[in-house]
Amino acid sequence: MFDLVIYNGVIVNSSTIIYPPSYIGIKNEKIACISTEPLTGTRSIDAKGGFITPGGIDAHVHVSQPCTSDTFDSATRSSICGGTTSFVCFATQERGVKSAIPDLKNYLALADGKCYCDYAMHMIVTDPTPTFLEEEMPIIVKDYGITSVKVYMTYKIWSVNDKQILQVLIMGRKLGVTTMIHAENNDVIEFLIDKFEKTGQTEPYFHAASRPFICEDEASYRAISLANTVDQALLIVHMSTKESMAHVRKAQTKNCPIYSETCPQYLFLTSEYLKSHTHEHKTTPVIDDGYEIEVSQNDSFQGAKYICSPPIRETQDELEGVWQAIENGTVTVYSSDHSPCNYDDKEGKKKGLKEDGSMDFAVVPNGLPGVETRLPLLFCYGVETGRISPQRFVEVSSTNPAALYGMSSFKGSIDIGLDADLVIWYPKGEMKPFKLTNEMLHHDIDHTPFAGMTFTNWPRYSILRGKVVWDRDNGGLKEVVPEGKYLKRGRSTMTMKRSEVPPKYFY
Amino acid sequence: MFDLVIYNGVIVNSSTIIYPPSYIGIKNEKIACISTEPLTGTRSIDAKGGFITPGGIDAHVHVSQPCTSDTFDSATRSSICGGTTSFVCFATQERGVKSAIPDLKNYLALADGKCYCDYAMHMIVTDPTPTFLEEEMPIIVKDYGITSVKVYMTYKIWSVNDKQILQVLIMGRKLGVTTMIHAENNDVIEFLIDKFEKTGQTEPYFHAASRPFICEDEASYRAISLANTVDQALLIVHMSTKESMAHVRKAQTKNCPIYSETCPQYLFLTSEYLKSHTHEHKTTPVIDDGYEIEVSQNDSFQGAKYICSPPIRETQDELEGVWQAIENGTVTVYSSDHSPCNYDDKEGKKKGLKEDGSMDFAVVPNGLPGVETRLPLLFCYGVETGRISPQRFVEVSSTNPAALYGMSSFKGSIDIGLDADLVIWYPKGEMKPFKLTNEMLHHDIDHTPFAGMTFTNWPRYSILRGKVVWDRDNGGLKEVVPEGKYLKRGRSTMTMKRSEVPPKYFY
Amino acid sequence: MFDLVIYNGVIVNSSTIIYPPSYIGIKNEKIACISTEPLTGTRSIDAKGGFITPGGIDAHVHVSQPCTSDTFDSATRSSICGGTTSFVCFATQERGVKSAIPDLKNYLALADGKCYCDYAMHMIVTDPTPTFLEEEMPIIVKDYGITSVKVYMTYKIWSVNDKQILQVLIMGRKLGVTTMIHAENNDVIEFLIDKFEKTGQTEPYFHAASRPFICEDEASYRAISLANTVDQALLIVHMSTKESMAHVRKAQTKNCPIYSETCPQYLFLTSEYLKSHTHEHKTTPVIDDGYEIEVSQNDSFQGAKYICSPPIRETQDELEGVWQAIENGTVTVYSSDHSPCNYDDKEGKKKGLKEDGSMDFAVVPNGLPGVETRLPLLFCYGVETGRISPQRFVEVSSTNPAALYGMSSFKGSIDIGLDADLVIWYPKGEMKPFKLTNEMLHHDIDHTPFAGMTFTNWPRYSILRGKVVWDRDNGGLKEVVPEGKYLKRGRSTMTMKRSEVPPKYFY
Amino acid sequence: MFDLVIYNGVIVNSSTIIYPPSYIGIKNEKIACISTEPLTGTRSIDAKGGFITPGGIDAHVHVSQPCTSDTFDSATRSSICGGTTSFVCFATQERGVKSAIPDLKNYLALADGKCYCDYAMHMIVTDPTPTFLEEEMPIIVKDYGITSVKVYMTYKIWSVNDKQILQVLIMGRKLGVTTMIHAENNDVIEFLIDKFEKTGQTEPYFHAASRPFICEDEASYRAISLANTVDQALLIVHMSTKESMAHVRKAQTKNCPIYSETCPQYLFLTSEYLKSHTHEHKTTPVIDDGYEIEVSQNDSFQGAKYICSPPIRETQDELEGVWQAIENGTVTVYSSDHSPCNYDDKEGKKKGLKEDGSMDFAVVPNGLPGVETRLPLLFCYGVETGRISPQRFVEVSSTNPAALYGMSSFKGSIDIGLDADLVIWYPKGEMKPFKLTNEMLHHDIDHTPFAGMTFTNWPRYSILRGKVVWDRDNGGLKEVVPEGKYLKRGRSTMTMKRSEVPPKYFY
Repeated sequence: MFDLVIYNGVIVNSSTIIYPPSYIGIKNEKIACISTEPLTGTRSIDAKGGFITPGGIDAHVHVSQPCTSDTFDSATRSSICGGTTSFVCFATQERGVKSAIPDLKNYLALADGKCYCDYAMHMIVTDPTPTFLEEEMPIIVKDYGITSVKVYMTYKIWSVNDKQILQVLIMGRKLGVTTMIHAENNDVIEFLIDKFEKTGQTEPYFHAASRPFICEDEASYRAISLANTVDQALLIVHMSTKESMAHVRKAQTKNCPIYSETCPQYLFLTSEYLKSHTHEHKTTPVIDDGYEIEVSQNDSFQGAKYICSPPIRETQDELEGVWQAIENGTVTVYSSDHSPCNYDDKEGKKKGLKEDGSMDFAVVPNGLPGVETRLPLLFCYGVETGRISPQRFVEVSSTNPAALYGMSSFKGSIDIGLDADLVIWYPKGEMKPFKLTNEMLHHDIDHTPFAGMTFTNWPRYSILRGKVVWDRDNGGLKEVVPEGKYLKRGRSTMTMKRSEVPPKYFY
Repeated sequence: MFDLVIYNGVIVNSSTIIYPPSYIGIKNEKIACISTEPLTGTRSIDAKGGFITPGGIDAHVHVSQPCTSDTFDSATRSSICGGTTSFVCFATQERGVKSAIPDLKNYLALADGKCYCDYAMHMIVTDPTPTFLEEEMPIIVKDYGITSVKVYMTYKIWSVNDKQILQVLIMGRKLGVTTMIHAENNDVIEFLIDKFEKTGQTEPYFHAASRPFICEDEASYRAISLANTVDQALLIVHMSTKESMAHVRKAQTKNCPIYSETCPQYLFLTSEYLKSHTHEHKTTPVIDDGYEIEVSQNDSFQGAKYICSPPIRETQDELEGVWQAIENGTVTVYSSDHSPCNYDDKEGKKKGLKEDGSMDFAVVPNGLPGVETRLPLLFCYGVETGRISPQRFVEVSSTNPAALYGMSSFKGSIDIGLDADLVIWYPKGEMKPFKLTNEMLHHDIDHTPFAGMTFTNWPRYSILRGKVVWDRDNGGLKEVVPEGKYLKRGRSTMTMKRSEVPPKYFY
Repeated sequence: MFDLVIYNGVIVNSSTIIYPPSYIGIKNEKIACISTEPLTGTRSIDAKGGFITPGGIDAHVHVSQPCTSDTFDSATRSSICGGTTSFVCFATQERGVKSAIPDLKNYLALADGKCYCDYAMHMIVTDPTPTFLEEEMPIIVKDYGITSVKVYMTYKIWSVNDKQILQVLIMGRKLGVTTMIHAENNDVIEFLIDKFEKTGQTEPYFHAASRPFICEDEASYRAISLANTVDQALLIVHMSTKESMAHVRKAQTKNCPIYSETCPQYLFLTSEYLKSHTHEHKTTPVIDDGYEIEVSQNDSFQGAKYICSPPIRETQDELEGVWQAIENGTVTVYSSDHSPCNYDDKEGKKKGLKEDGSMDFAVVPNGLPGVETRLPLLFCYGVETGRISPQRFVEVSSTNPAALYGMSSFKGSIDIGLDADLVIWYPKGEMKPFKLTNEMLHHDIDHTPFAGMTFTNWPRYSILRGKVVWDRDNGGLKEVVPEGKYLKRGRSTMTMKRSEVPPKYFY
Repeated sequence: MFDLVIYNGVIVNSSTIIYPPSYIGIKNEKIACISTEPLTGTRSIDAKGGFITPGGIDAHVHVSQPCTSDTFDSATRSSICGGTTSFVCFATQERGVKSAIPDLKNYLALADGKCYCDYAMHMIVTDPTPTFLEEEMPIIVKDYGITSVKVYMTYKIWSVNDKQILQVLIMGRKLGVTTMIHAENNDVIEFLIDKFEKTGQTEPYFHAASRPFICEDEASYRAISLANTVDQALLIVHMSTKESMAHVRKAQTKNCPIYSETCPQYLFLTSEYLKSHTHEHKTTPVIDDGYEIEVSQNDSFQGAKYICSPPIRETQDELEGVWQAIENGTVTVYSSDHSPCNYDDKEGKKKGLKEDGSMDFAVVPNGLPGVETRLPLLFCYGVETGRISPQRFVEVSSTNPAALYGMSSFKGSIDIGLDADLVIWYPKGEMKPFKLTNEMLHHDIDHTPFAGMTFTNWPRYSILRGKVVWDRDNGGLKEVVPEGKYLKRGRSTMTMKRSEVPPKYFY
């Protein structure tokens, strides 16, 4: 007798598909049995021929950080409504602070008891002192199960230099910590912002113009070079260009442990959105067939909603390059980079709108909301269009994030012994297609960049450790309580394959 | 109550690993249940912490063809002793024959009741007439479940020209048939053989010299071009060079459905073996650490044992290129190209040795035995050395061959509903390492090119559809009867992802 | 005292520019002296600040061959009016003919005394028998000074197979003969023509569709592979695609002696021209700014004028690829591939127009006229727009053809001791721009594909061995007599750099 | 009547060769006439069939800078004895200094009246303040004819950051100044030096280990990215790796104005020399056939002689990569990077040898002597071995440096109107080969890294503006007085081809 039995579904893992008859038996929050023979459970769900995928893992979510308007409560709620049953957010080691642990504890306290999905944390490193790397990081790994760090090559207040990146990478080798990097050349950006400010070109579109693809292409090549120097694994976050993807592909071809992340905004949006509202007669910019946006003709600042870094890119061709990398295996993880702030709010995007009505893109908080739309977007526009296989969908949105970030012993696949985190989709064609509006979403943000897009599928059920937390056809969320728990992670099983032999000379 | 329960093992699939406690329940030849809870069975096997992998699928085996000394009986016996529970061999459409079906029936009859493992067939196409392509192939697909064809770009008697290749590819699109191609430029080879014959350079080594890497590089580029012309999937068989692998990688980067096969000989052997015995004082050529061969100083023709096409390559660097392609994902399937003939036999390799003691490589039958050694070689030198993950091992040796050749609804993975074909390995370090001799193998061939190599693991059990057919610690094969069955295959699920939209203009 | 002194010009060679004061002294048809000091001559020409370039050498001209409507008389006349003072045309070794020499003699006789410019000949090889290669070719080289051969990979009646190409290349190595190759995959073309004929798609545009870029990409890769197999130099003629240029660039990067030729049609025309007249309302298709064509709405067959092989390509992007290869050094020689036939003529293009008004592209003679427009096109659209330097113009249109084809001891540069073949251009801005009409040209053809293009410069004087043969401002051609002479050529000085060491094994 | 007539030689320019009869007439320091007819002169030289090349231009020479032991007197003397009749050395804008002009004047004063060859200056920019870039640089260009600047990405005291590089490049666009860059990633180097110091690995060899190829590969990619951001020309100095050359090649393929310099040390020396003397039994390390060095077994510090940056590389394969770039056209200029300091001198290399006999590579002055050996090395090992053509020799060692650095209106080619700077070589085989010893050279340095190499040719005469300054068979230098003059340069004619249209947005 199982706690829950799910039957009649098509079980999709990152490499295989199992057709019915299939029974998944769940006991004590875990997948206990997968069988062709009927199983009985306290509760059972008929998956009626829809795909069953592992619960989504969003490895890149900003929540309750400065300039993000979502709290743990709202972000995790939004998350499960979109099929993401776990995410990884960011604690920060602030520069100049003696110890990062008090801040970490405070940040953990913010989440405690508030979360509707499971959550883990990366540590942003802004000040890689010997004390931090050699004394605190071992504690953070061991006591808090934080086995990944993120560094920035841009943003003056957070960025580290190449030497510091090397020091972080070396620490990573020693402790089994995965390094993530935001790769944009900060000097080029500063140089261009200076130029634009001098000429008064400060409308939202110039945000993108100040961070051209060459910034990312250069910085990603440099980041890969640094990782190769010390023969250590590296994930480049939110990649958005063809050339930077080509750098990763080349490194992967040589079997260097270089990994790539991309996000929905780099698959669906062009920089046209940043400027659309400054042009007359463009009430409904149509980028592709399924996509329409209602815009107000009275608001020339609306492009600010689309400000993020790296920026959304100029041409459909650049987007195709990112799709190609999703399809050909270059992309390792697909995340949202959920980093939302309200539009119509003086602490949000409208920070960039001065009293006199002039604009300054350099002041607008960067980042888009997306934790809820991430999975449905790729499912509808990737799987249902035939562009990628369902297995590849599972791989980039759940299995790889689990493996890369040390969670594959409990998450990321529909296999016995793992947490019973599952998403059940509608059989193709059974859900009525709809156009997204922001009101349909469950975050605390006043807009979504994907409004107007048509969705042909959506998670029908989200199941977190054996408990149904989202039942779209029966009231959605209504009775759910925040039982998400903090995930202590182990060492990455993806980078672990790395030879243990250190590079010659420097250890 | 199951027919067989296997417990205590580490279940390896092509993307995930499941650690114990694990119970696999088998009923009616199928995997019926995978569970963390104990299952009971009529028989049970303690896998004692060893890896359990899906039964190996060898997608490239020559048996009972002209110049092969193995019969279905001996080849399938050899196969299961090395963990391969299914293979695909080759029926041939002979040039000029009115219908290929009588020959196919005869060939099937040779196999009937003789096989120890399951078997399927590819069809070699040497004469792609409209009648064959349009009338016979639909029958062959439907009635015989043969959903793959092979064409040759070399060997005058079998080779087809570029136009014929296009015609075969188009037929493949229409019928859902996968095309395999032997890619070597025949004109270059003929040109070089002429040159060598004129100068009397006919020792075994000149076989390799007459088929330089440029032949494969050119032909693989051409084959990919032809497949892209008609936007059809293609597998290039037995690839052996860095540049040709780069062609495939480039095509895969563009998401063209181009697939690659390689074989153990291109991972382990250099052309030194072809000439080793002509040099004095080289009794034990050591290519890498684990490898020694005893050779007789009295037999200058021994190099002939290593004659195959494409030839084994000149440098360790070229071998590394093939390893890299195994590691980085370029290689789709890993097969043996088992194509054995006896050495000390006038119908075998010694065909090339004339009465007067002179040699002629051009007359020596091409091909090496290898169906039994295929899996243990990659397991020992790939997985146990840490070069590739166990999942990647499973992917290239079982899951991908099943998917590429239309067998994934019944073979290729440890998932419920599939055939209970399993290999249980020794836990690392538990088997006593040994050096291979030909006597240890179960084929009917008088040599193995891998003699002298050290093996640190070997299939402990091979299980075919729920029946133990090889139990290494308990007498090996002794009570097994030939219950292997013929496999009717469906359409490839790997190439099926291909867009159904035909290329513009020509349909 | 010189026969002719040219002063006041800017002397342009393939690497340097010499500004006035400059005096070129010509004696006995040769450049005898170049000086900053005044020289005196029987005749003198004031070049008034215009560029002086070496007389153009067009290395690819078809004249008096089947399907060409120009004779030696008209083609050489047209040539000098466009600044080309020498060209190389094609003698043919017909398949099955016992000796090629009688035909060669006949062909030479056609030219004798008829030519207004100097001329040399390549030999087209269609039947590379041992007799021809080993017995006739040494005579052809020695007695006739023909040091280059051309082979075809397409056109059934002329094409040779890969083995024959290797045999020709080997002959080339031995005799110091340069090999030229027309690289298109014939099987793909035949396959596509079959398809189009079956579906009745036989309008002019389908000529291009039947020879897609992949045909050239594949064949050029193959041709390079063959040349590398025997380590011999090779020129690929009339290249038209980005990917094939990339193949050549890659070979050149490795210092393989692979050379590239392109032609004006691949820089200026897209396949839109082939179909333009089938669309309504397109009286003046404008491909780029300077280009307009008047077309008749009553003639849907006009696209046939643009039929050539390889075909003009589909997109401006592809054209840019060829321009890039001109600019970056990949292109070695720039030729016209002058291969003209009349449009309004049953032996010309209108061969493809059947009695019933239906069309068949497969019957239309291939080839465009262009010997007269070649230099002005590149000068106006390359040099005067700043796209390439004047030196690079000289290099591809005169110096490189001379060096590649064994004429640099007497042609191709403005240096002492060489033939006084010179072109004097108007100083920039001094000539009144005009739109080209066919009436302005001097060939015997009833159309030019470049009609409607604007020219901002044109050769003001053409000088052949010290004699003014074209004086645009003074009656053009009027008093000229045909004094062009046959050029016996020596060994290529470009490929001569090739190491003399033969590749191992096969000589 | 000319001042000097040189006859009977083979005149080599960067694209053509002129065979005798040839007469070069020189008047007022200039080449006034080149003729096939005899000329008469006050003095005449019989070049007896040897090559006559333009006087060498060494575009990268350090002289009278801190840590260089050569003065203008000794460096220019050494220069003309090796056929280099002009060089470009380095004035420096020191960081923090109010104006760079006083230092420039002082530096010019050091040279004044001391030089045996002509000389020009680059400006090293270490502090690109707006004042310097906008106010001083226009003066430096106009009044001093300094039209090139150099920036460093490494060496803390000189290096500039990416933003500063962009600012220098922009200034370069505006003023027509060519930017040179030393591309090595400083952070990686500092990181590695720290590691080596901690482990006491401070012998000379670890200098190379602390600057691995990845430093140059990364920095050169970054430098190219920066230049492309602002669409400005850039020369990367002293390139030494295959991958960085590939970056340049790729940029050149796209017609970006990226240029490459290399030096003899990267063609001839491997890092074996840095450690050779620490190994026993290696009295005569033989890197290639012509090369032997006598070393003392008592001096374990001798490797320090070979310390330079970038370091000499590890493998012959890496050297081949640089040769390939010389041959295929990627390398634009071939310079010496002459930066000599004495070995046996506490201010020289032995700075790195502490009182207690321990070593510290980090303290050893970087740089090798080479201004005198530059031309003969490439002539003997490049031209005389057949590896490159004589024209390519002239191009990289004289014509290109003149064009790139704004001197082609008076230097770099054997053309009328240019300075009569000439080198006359021995006809091949006429000079007795010798092994180089340091005593044969004319610098003030106590060693040469090329000692022991065999030379098969050497400049027989060096002629500076019509005056013989080196006559090897007649006492060499003996009567020469220092008449070299300072060269005010114009704008680069190589980068001038660059479109004048600024990149969008930022001007």
